[in-house]
Amino acid sequence: MAADDKHLIERATGESTVLHRGWIELRKDTVVLPDGNLATREYLGHSGAVAVVPLLDDGTEMRLVLVRQYRYPVQKVLLEFPAGKLEPGEDALLCGQRELQEETGYVAREWAFGGEIHNAAAYSTESIWIWFARGLQPGPARPDSGEFVETVTMTLAELDALCDRGELPDVKTQIGLHWLQRWQAGKMSLTWQSGTAAASL
Amino acid sequence: MAADDKHLIERATGESTVLHRGWIELRKDTVVLPDGNLATREYLGHSGAVAVVPLLDDGTEMRLVLVRQYRYPVQKVLLEFPAGKLEPGEDALLCGQRELQEETGYVAREWAFGGEIHNAAAYSTESIWIWFARGLQPGPARPDSGEFVETVTMTLAELDALCDRGELPDVKTQIGLHWLQRWQAGKMSLTWQSGTAAASL
Repeated sequence: MAADDKHLIERATGESTVLHRGWIELRKDTVVLPDGNLATREYLGHSGAVAVVPLLDDGTEMRLVLVRQYRYPVQKVLLEFPAGKLEPGEDALLCGQRELQEETGYVAREWAFGGEIHNAAAYSTESIWIWFARGLQPGPARPDSGEFVETVTMTLAELDALCDRGELPDVKTQIGLHWLQRWQAGKMSLTWQSGTAAASL
Repeated sequence: MAADDKHLIERATGESTVLHRGWIELRKDTVVLPDGNLATREYLGHSGAVAVVPLLDDGTEMRLVLVRQYRYPVQKVLLEFPAGKLEPGEDALLCGQRELQEETGYVAREWAFGGEIHNAAAYSTESIWIWFARGLQPGPARPDSGEFVETVTMTLAELDALCDRGELPDVKTQIGLHWLQRWQAGKMSLTWQSGTAAASL
């Protein structure tokens, strides 16, 4: 934020209530608006999530590992990069490694942090941290109980064509695709690190 | 969804409770999982939102119209394309026209629908419908009471550089930028229609 953003910033007054309902944490804060008036802000407290763009580079043409999953709130099977919610206190990279392995069975030799996105900043504290993974080794998936997920692989060209046809509505997946293309074009940089170093955190 | 997605799809049982808290609608449904077991799904009911990618083509180099807005849940001023929530029963294009004018003052001569994204499919029914607008005429902004929004314009190159530096975390804005670039590259098509025709709906 710029130093001169006082005309936009809302300050918490400290008056806040929290309602828990299942996994959902609803917060209601009283804030001071830039003009000095009070207002309430109702939103979700979310621990954040990690999404992984897994590059399957074992063959002649790179493929991507994705999952197909029914998303009940939107009543659709969505094609998504593997992702999951952070456990309390969990390291983001370890979360990415856990989710990739649980959902697809793959373990990655190298990891690189892509960046952070806000998917519902109007009403949720959620950040999604996007990681890239390469040097994939297959293994058995271990989905959570009650989680039904199908692993698929496709080439970058196939995923790109889905995006052009409007058939890639999941935001983290679409942004992961774009960042991958920006990285390949030399516009975004990625710093790769060993996956085993992270596992010893 | 493919015809063979029975191994993924969850069916509603009809058992559902709804809790209203301020503007937030919390739903809790009992569903039948693909294996026949029952589970509960807790999520937000959301009427959907419209985001507008406004192309300011009055000069030699096209600029984009964006807003800077404090997003209390993430405690940041975000740079975003103008957007807002659909009123109950509101037409998506009329919503986009209303939000563009309220937040920035601009009225657009032509509109084209880009597509639909799901920004929080794990826990919200929200769709964001992204529209493109061109032939902009300036006018007075009319922000909602208690809404503090700053209009900015920038070139496509400037916005693209922000994205490369990881400084464009808002998902609808980043996806709007990518779609604009895909359209310019001839990969995505847009069908333009008159803005006044929509206003008479």
